[in-house]
Amino acid sequence: MTTAANGVNVQALLDAREALKGSPEAAQFVWRATTKWRNGVHSTTTVKEYFGLGQEQSHKTETVFDADHPEVFAAEDNGITPIEYLLVGLASCLTAGVASVAQNRGIQLRSVEATLEGAHDIRGILGADSDVRNGFNGIKVTFTIDADASKQEIEALVAQSQKRSAVFDALTNPTDVTVEVA
Amino acid sequence: MTTAANGVNVQALLDAREALKGSPEAAQFVWRATTKWRNGVHSTTTVKEYFGLGQEQSHKTETVFDADHPEVFAAEDNGITPIEYLLVGLASCLTAGVASVAQNRGIQLRSVEATLEGAHDIRGILGADSDVRNGFNGIKVTFTIDADASKQEIEALVAQSQKRSAVFDALTNPTDVTVEVA
Repeated sequence: MTTAANGVNVQALLDAREALKGSPEAAQFVWRATTKWRNGVHSTTTVKEYFGLGQEQSHKTETVFDADHPEVFAAEDNGITPIEYLLVGLASCLTAGVASVAQNRGIQLRSVEATLEGAHDIRGILGADSDVRNGFNGIKVTFTIDADASKQEIEALVAQSQKRSAVFDALTNPTDVTVEVA
Repeated sequence: MTTAANGVNVQALLDAREALKGSPEAAQFVWRATTKWRNGVHSTTTVKEYFGLGQEQSHKTETVFDADHPEVFAAEDNGITPIEYLLVGLASCLTAGVASVAQNRGIQLRSVEATLEGAHDIRGILGADSDVRNGFNGIKVTFTIDADASKQEIEALVAQSQKRSAVFDALTNPTDVTVEVA
């Protein structure tokens, strides 16, 4: 195995894997977000604290995300739409996976770019046709990767990234979501 | 029905619903995102253009989102984690829905806040236990809403928002995701 300089500390991840095999309670993370309604369909969501490795943790900085609907939906477009955030999550998860797997396999990456398209029939959310689902009809992800590897090795990187992707799993398989009023 | 000033143009949405019943092709939207790998598991995702109402459309501004892993994963924490973006999308979608349904029902909102917790056993993504899924074990959303309405009416708002939420559907039901190398 050659040493690739992709900037991923694979040894730390392999060590964490071994450590967490013996202490599953430390592997229980809770990611958090808090959203405030602003006006119309505009909201801001704050992400900073989370729980993991048995204790409260914090990102280095607090990040605030605006979401809104675009002007074609008679809204003010103060931010991207909620459903577009799913594409941001999916793209960044698969890209992180490609970098991690490449590092583990000793493949030097030069550039990785992903283009996502989420097809969405908005008759669902508008209640115009009860046979149309509310979410995406489908998502297509296309990677363009320049690396010291064959086309086949690059395809294998992407396949392994998918296999270990948190967001790919969350979108392609059902997640239990409970919604309550305090 | 009283007139509530929540800032949602419900009449435009009801008109769009009627218009799109007769022209399903205009209801076919494509949301897009483009991601570039930076270093390690850090990436930036850009969202601006989309397709809808039969033509290319654009958000007023381009938005760029950083994603990374936190320092406890031996990364640099240059942005929130990919899976946290799913919470941002879910929270903002359900909140927009609450505002829209309230407007349609003539309920004046004073404040809406949502707190999300996504439980995540990271042994899945680390490959430490093949019985553990990669994504969330479950997500809990808690709304705190101050409005000119009874507890029962507020619960009904939240229930209707869930029923019409694009992101709630995308997370609770399987979405078809295709990943290719160009």
